[in-house]
Amino acid sequence: MQKADIGIVGLGVMGRMLALNMARNGFRVAGYDLDGDKVAALNTAGDSKVVGCQVLEDLLGLLERPRKIMMMVPAGKPVDSAIAGLRPALDRGDVLIDGGNSHFRDTERRAAALEAGGIHYIGTGVSGGEYGALWGPSIMPGGDPKAWSLVRPIFEAIAAKVTEPDGALSPCVTYIGPQGAGHFVKMVHNGIEYGDMQLIAETYDVLHRALGLSALQLHDTFARWNEGDLQSYLIEITRDIFAVRDEETGKPLVDLILDEAQHKGTGKWTSQSALDLGAAAPIISAAVEARMLSAYKNERVRASKLLSGPTPAFEGDVDAFVDAMERAMYAAKICSYAQGFGVLRAASEEYGYNLHYGEIAKIWRGGCIIRAQFLNKITAAFERDANLPNLLLDPELGKAVEARQDALRQVICYAAANGIPAPALSSALAYFDAYRSERLPANLLQSQRDYFGAHTYRRIDREGAFHTDWAALSKAAR
Amino acid sequence: MQKADIGIVGLGVMGRMLALNMARNGFRVAGYDLDGDKVAALNTAGDSKVVGCQVLEDLLGLLERPRKIMMMVPAGKPVDSAIAGLRPALDRGDVLIDGGNSHFRDTERRAAALEAGGIHYIGTGVSGGEYGALWGPSIMPGGDPKAWSLVRPIFEAIAAKVTEPDGALSPCVTYIGPQGAGHFVKMVHNGIEYGDMQLIAETYDVLHRALGLSALQLHDTFARWNEGDLQSYLIEITRDIFAVRDEETGKPLVDLILDEAQHKGTGKWTSQSALDLGAAAPIISAAVEARMLSAYKNERVRASKLLSGPTPAFEGDVDAFVDAMERAMYAAKICSYAQGFGVLRAASEEYGYNLHYGEIAKIWRGGCIIRAQFLNKITAAFERDANLPNLLLDPELGKAVEARQDALRQVICYAAANGIPAPALSSALAYFDAYRSERLPANLLQSQRDYFGAHTYRRIDREGAFHTDWAALSKAAR
Repeated sequence: MQKADIGIVGLGVMGRMLALNMARNGFRVAGYDLDGDKVAALNTAGDSKVVGCQVLEDLLGLLERPRKIMMMVPAGKPVDSAIAGLRPALDRGDVLIDGGNSHFRDTERRAAALEAGGIHYIGTGVSGGEYGALWGPSIMPGGDPKAWSLVRPIFEAIAAKVTEPDGALSPCVTYIGPQGAGHFVKMVHNGIEYGDMQLIAETYDVLHRALGLSALQLHDTFARWNEGDLQSYLIEITRDIFAVRDEETGKPLVDLILDEAQHKGTGKWTSQSALDLGAAAPIISAAVEARMLSAYKNERVRASKLLSGPTPAFEGDVDAFVDAMERAMYAAKICSYAQGFGVLRAASEEYGYNLHYGEIAKIWRGGCIIRAQFLNKITAAFERDANLPNLLLDPELGKAVEARQDALRQVICYAAANGIPAPALSSALAYFDAYRSERLPANLLQSQRDYFGAHTYRRIDREGAFHTDWAALSKAAR
Repeated sequence: MQKADIGIVGLGVMGRMLALNMARNGFRVAGYDLDGDKVAALNTAGDSKVVGCQVLEDLLGLLERPRKIMMMVPAGKPVDSAIAGLRPALDRGDVLIDGGNSHFRDTERRAAALEAGGIHYIGTGVSGGEYGALWGPSIMPGGDPKAWSLVRPIFEAIAAKVTEPDGALSPCVTYIGPQGAGHFVKMVHNGIEYGDMQLIAETYDVLHRALGLSALQLHDTFARWNEGDLQSYLIEITRDIFAVRDEETGKPLVDLILDEAQHKGTGKWTSQSALDLGAAAPIISAAVEARMLSAYKNERVRASKLLSGPTPAFEGDVDAFVDAMERAMYAAKICSYAQGFGVLRAASEEYGYNLHYGEIAKIWRGGCIIRAQFLNKITAAFERDANLPNLLLDPELGKAVEARQDALRQVICYAAANGIPAPALSSALAYFDAYRSERLPANLLQSQRDYFGAHTYRRIDREGAFHTDWAALSKAAR
């Protein structure tokens, strides 16, 4: 066989689909897995440009030099094991790529170790699941720019394509930045995905549990919403989900699914990284925490018997309220993306990633889970001001929230009054109201901290750090 | 001089105050600091039981064996430096204590290294600031139980004392658990403190910014609240703060303080640890995020000019609303402590700390920042059920929230409608409503995850993991 353009280590679903995607785009691919069944699954896929091997040396012998090897193995120890297995056989100038959901700090550690020996390392986000991997994912590569130029033709060929207004096709891949920048950006993508999903879930909960909309009505609602501001892949699949019925009972399938959400690491990592960076991302935190709470099913069942609340009721125009929910969700979604891009901005400054926010929004328009036309508005905002500190300061996006705030306030009041939890929607409004507050009550926090810990405070009318003996002065004042 | 009972390394304010506290209680103390001024400050404090030295060997020579040395240096590298300096001179059986706010994982790493050489290690939280250190802090020691018995007489003597109903004095110290348990519990204490402070700040913001209560009215309000359910040190100092006027302008001093809150590591660490443990603590997260947002002052000023919102207005009975705020804050406070103790419970199980929650609540009743009679109710809850999974499942505490939920709903509606951010209060209600929900909308999240990522789902009517081809079935249904 002719030498292969790229090797893939790890032939699970994602690895196999990526291999077939590459082959369909004209590249020769050698795949490797210890598991003979997975190797067989690749070989029987019937593409002559693809060959699977069960012996690592075979893979290495098949690769064109400098060798390009993409690891598609689970994040964590498996990546370190794969690197340990490959390292002795690699030569200076070879390119090693991690296409899993690794933590960006692991990627930075691995890159430093390998680059010391002249091996190029790329940590890349690959979003889009099984389908995206085969037909076009969104790809977020970070690391050595020299290595990027070597893999660029392959990544641009296999990436999802978005049709621009002028008819041109843009591949959903761009060089993200040095070191762990690719995995960082993929992590934040997933955090934003958590936020989008939670906002949809809360909206569903209000419409279904409180207003009593049927699955059919929900299907129609999400179908209509998918034609408006909220148009996106997640709204589209939510529309589809409400159309599916359980074959046996004829009931809407969604009603029969257990309400315990699993969560992988990336949503949690986004919250934790945002906290480290001092970049508040409360909607993402609320989404992660909501999944955690869902997992306490047994306690919730017990609590539901002990703690009663209001019986949901609705009076008024249902259609108008459903429209308000659409406006509320869109306002909250903009706040959520403002937070996500705020995390990216903080990371870019703190870690020297030099991120291009408008380009990142562009490559999220296709292939990935949060894909939506809406992302064009974010790109446009950064084209208006490349140093925009927060999306809410963009005239178009900020005003879009401002114009919908009444709907968001209405929905939150309704949910609060009717006992439906709306943590992400509430966080969005609190964020909007805090961000547009020239003055927040943190002056009281600073007074308290100075009172009990002599931490000092600053004043609004003069420079300097001040300390007050609050206890003594308050005693004197009374 | 007679040999000293204990040595203190690091004679900043906290170290010096602890030394004087120990001496007042009859112990001989040797202190050490590189900084001659600090050594002098200790020596001129005029207590014959205390001696300060600027040479480490002098300190070591002064100590009774086995030596007990308490480090009072800033968390992070300074602790590692102090250990590196002391280690060569330590003998098997000596006890080294870290009394700073170290991360519990650092404490576990240090304990493992030292205990391998026969040195006992204790990581202890010390809460109460400068005043508490001198007159009685709340102390949370974790680590080697054998070492605890050696320092117990000193710690019990210097700790804050709480008078029990029968007149007995209880010291605010107890052995917390092995390894980093002491620092973990201190970290969560601080996280709860963040939550309490943020709930107070939001209440102040509603009463001051929206309802227009003056500092004097706020003083009177907090004075009254300090006689009721909310009675606590933090309410008491808030009362005092509103009584203090700027000497120069005569204005309430709090109004002249810059609204940018600093935050040390422990609040953030609590959120991050809660996320790692899968124990949702959204009120603490909201409190940390609110401080972060406060720090974006320049952006907030800019946003305040771009993004308008409702002009706060209030119609109705102000006194009744103020009473509702008291009830709302108390309900939210119980939710916050439920979360904090939920984090402790998760850590106890995950890290094998074997925590005694009721005892922890007891030692927080005096000396520390969150001290309050309210903590007796938590101890009582764990006396009713030592394995209580969540404070909301305790009949008394759960019912206390249930009985006040209307007030919390009212306040959140008011804040949302009037443009006042209330992230922690909102999180509390969302938590209460989610926790008492037998069914949450996570079934939709699981449907979505199965749609785009084939993650599978479980059902409510049968065992097993299921996968559905949602796209195909929904197409067929339409």
